[in-house]
Amino acid sequence: MTKKNTLGITVKKDKDFSEWYTQIIQKADLADYSSVSGCIVYKPNSYSIWEKIKEITDKKFKAVGIKNAYFPLFIPESLLQKEAKHIEGFAPEVAWVTHAGSSKLNERLAVRPTSETIMYDSYSKWIRSYNDLPLRINQWNNVVRWEFKHPTPFLRGREFLWNEGHTCFATKEEAEAEGKEIIDIYDDVCKNYLAMPSLIGKKSEKEKFAGAVYTISMEFIMPNSKSIQGPDFHHDGQNFSKPFEISYTDKEGNKQYVWQNTWAISTRMLGVLIAMHSDDKGLILPPKVASTQAVIIPIFFSDTKAKITKEAQKIKDRLQKTGISVHFDDREGYSPGWKFNEWEIKGIPVRIELGPRDLEKNEVVIVRRDTNEKQTLPLSALAKEVELILGQIQDNLYGRAEELLKKSVIQVDNLKEAKEQLNLQKIIFSPWCGDTGCEDKFKEMTGAKSLNSPLEQPKLKKDQKCFACKEKAKYWFYLGKSY
Amino acid sequence: MTKKNTLGITVKKDKDFSEWYTQIIQKADLADYSSVSGCIVYKPNSYSIWEKIKEITDKKFKAVGIKNAYFPLFIPESLLQKEAKHIEGFAPEVAWVTHAGSSKLNERLAVRPTSETIMYDSYSKWIRSYNDLPLRINQWNNVVRWEFKHPTPFLRGREFLWNEGHTCFATKEEAEAEGKEIIDIYDDVCKNYLAMPSLIGKKSEKEKFAGAVYTISMEFIMPNSKSIQGPDFHHDGQNFSKPFEISYTDKEGNKQYVWQNTWAISTRMLGVLIAMHSDDKGLILPPKVASTQAVIIPIFFSDTKAKITKEAQKIKDRLQKTGISVHFDDREGYSPGWKFNEWEIKGIPVRIELGPRDLEKNEVVIVRRDTNEKQTLPLSALAKEVELILGQIQDNLYGRAEELLKKSVIQVDNLKEAKEQLNLQKIIFSPWCGDTGCEDKFKEMTGAKSLNSPLEQPKLKKDQKCFACKEKAKYWFYLGKSY
Repeated sequence: MTKKNTLGITVKKDKDFSEWYTQIIQKADLADYSSVSGCIVYKPNSYSIWEKIKEITDKKFKAVGIKNAYFPLFIPESLLQKEAKHIEGFAPEVAWVTHAGSSKLNERLAVRPTSETIMYDSYSKWIRSYNDLPLRINQWNNVVRWEFKHPTPFLRGREFLWNEGHTCFATKEEAEAEGKEIIDIYDDVCKNYLAMPSLIGKKSEKEKFAGAVYTISMEFIMPNSKSIQGPDFHHDGQNFSKPFEISYTDKEGNKQYVWQNTWAISTRMLGVLIAMHSDDKGLILPPKVASTQAVIIPIFFSDTKAKITKEAQKIKDRLQKTGISVHFDDREGYSPGWKFNEWEIKGIPVRIELGPRDLEKNEVVIVRRDTNEKQTLPLSALAKEVELILGQIQDNLYGRAEELLKKSVIQVDNLKEAKEQLNLQKIIFSPWCGDTGCEDKFKEMTGAKSLNSPLEQPKLKKDQKCFACKEKAKYWFYLGKSY
Repeated sequence: MTKKNTLGITVKKDKDFSEWYTQIIQKADLADYSSVSGCIVYKPNSYSIWEKIKEITDKKFKAVGIKNAYFPLFIPESLLQKEAKHIEGFAPEVAWVTHAGSSKLNERLAVRPTSETIMYDSYSKWIRSYNDLPLRINQWNNVVRWEFKHPTPFLRGREFLWNEGHTCFATKEEAEAEGKEIIDIYDDVCKNYLAMPSLIGKKSEKEKFAGAVYTISMEFIMPNSKSIQGPDFHHDGQNFSKPFEISYTDKEGNKQYVWQNTWAISTRMLGVLIAMHSDDKGLILPPKVASTQAVIIPIFFSDTKAKITKEAQKIKDRLQKTGISVHFDDREGYSPGWKFNEWEIKGIPVRIELGPRDLEKNEVVIVRRDTNEKQTLPLSALAKEVELILGQIQDNLYGRAEELLKKSVIQVDNLKEAKEQLNLQKIIFSPWCGDTGCEDKFKEMTGAKSLNSPLEQPKLKKDQKCFACKEKAKYWFYLGKSY
């Protein structure tokens, strides 16, 4: 009988993170390279996590009145160019369609890197009066950014999946208030489902979105202490509504331009999730986003097979009734030990072993994927116990990620210490001037860049100086090496 | 106060179907043209129906063991060319990416018109042994076919959304058996949710999918008696597995090529749905796919406003508890009559009118969108009654569509009558030879083409001749004018 290669991961996460990450993607069957350079295949094991993220997030969007729509994949070149900073930011990475069939197109079409321009072209026709506001539309789609940097599955690629919300409000205040609502939703999804805390704050002028007034980002600290930007919210002010002529007549009959935001969460989060929780044995998934939460593995011999199978089926039914998604691995020709390994690599939170001796005692053996802890449980209380254990795993994973985040950040107020800490793979939290020139210089010197500035932050000392250039400090900022 | 243009539809469905269709798309706020020719915006009112179709269908796919994944949008030209008939069928409509940023690509990339070739390139790496089969993978995505025919929102456009299932089996028998399973799922969705019956059968050699051994299609007869192809299933035999080298080692250790199928349902069904059920007043939606099933419209004067609002809120809560999705239209500055019109055009199945006199009698007025029937109901039984009425609307819409289908098809066995009936806007059901030459000739003569041949069909008379060319008839076939 042919068996798939299920050799474990051959390197340690804390020794060679990048090779460990590459192996886990392949061995947990999460993604595959494709014949299009920089584009991956999202295999069912990772796509099912994305489906969960979408489902959870989308429900929260709908609950606050956001509606989904779908806009064209293509954007005419002339439209993409309407907002100067936007095109400047995206032009180097645009994939251009120039031909259809055997005909050359009159105008090149961009494959959307983001949809502001095509959506705002419509919005300018749809919005007439204050009665048409707010307009809060979202789409779940694919976008293409032809980056030339080294691609990494999920974390950096030329095509990814995301949501892009694009909203219009009558006033600046209403638009800005949406920021809290959206970031709260993303934070809820990341914390309570993906089991990951983040640093939430405002990006620097240099690092904000191309075309935005300001950007609020969620920065995750990876186990290799590099930071990576997760979901974000951009307040665009009237930067787009003016060139795109998105205006309305107010109650007094005056013409006003709308105030806009855009916000997104992408499949990059799959990479962050995988890297954050998993270990040297393979993938570890938070139960709330695992499409299979428990696997039953029978240990049978020819004489006990029928009995064990029947009991396993009963356990499966009982767990499903409690709302636990469970798989019964009844494949023949694979040893229990081989199956243990396979489901361990694939990150199923709970393993239930069912053998003839356990069954005689009306017991089963349960193994937690996060701690490898083994316990024997009476059959009668199983569903309730498994539910409890799933909750404990969820909490434990969050706790570990939070500890990692805390350990990674260190407060420093001078350049010497900043350099030392960055060399020790830390994220620094420092009083900073926010100046783009200072940021460029610091990046050249250390390879680190600014992450963000917490929305609520400690007070700066009177006359506090910038940790890097000694000019006046304006805010506390997170800075570090990042993806 | 500015009010949106809610003028009704100005033409009759049975007088000028095409203009009626154009108006309903705009006035029910379903789609909008975009600045990319042939590509539309799916507005929330139509996209929400697509979300329902996806959700319902996807659940059924998962229940039979199909898994979702996501493959790249782009296909290298060399890959697309691997199966000769496939590229021949799609080449004239491919949108080509030739540049990224300011660089010319080494090889042109097709924006996927369908994903066989990019998926099978992966499958050939993933499948090794009979243990890896069946492989049943589906994706929900966007595809581009740069047609040069006149576009019609939903029915024909250059970008559309769909599911594409691509499966591999060890044997021809298993692959073919999937046909029934998949067509049953699509038929269930179309009949029991979209309230539309169809003609199900095998396509002719001329009309089958580019690369398939055979195609099973579902053909819908539109109210203008033109047919349109809906969901379909293609059995590809080993036509792709051989050029793509998708092979496995069987139990005896021999190399075998897999047997494959592909199948799809697309956003075209939105157009069919809209056209099928709606009337001269606007959209009519089957309750099972309406994201809002009932709307409460208060009729209040300044002194009764508080009381009516409170009662409306109570009704809303009660209906929601029963699982009915309901909207309370409490906008000010719009008259009840104006609101009646708006929700009528937008196709909400049930309207609940709540005025002070009704309230005094503990009653409400209910209006059915499909029949315009008005009835007064006691408040106490409301939720139950509305549920019942929604079921009746669903059944009534199906009944009407079924009647239309029956009326549209007529059995004929000779060319003269065939021509007469086609001129009377009928679909004909005829004994046919199936020959491509005969089909070409018939199409040239009448503008009609073959639709499909029912899987279970009446027996042909001994020595039955083809209705068109008088050669030997091979099957009963539906033929007609189509989109």
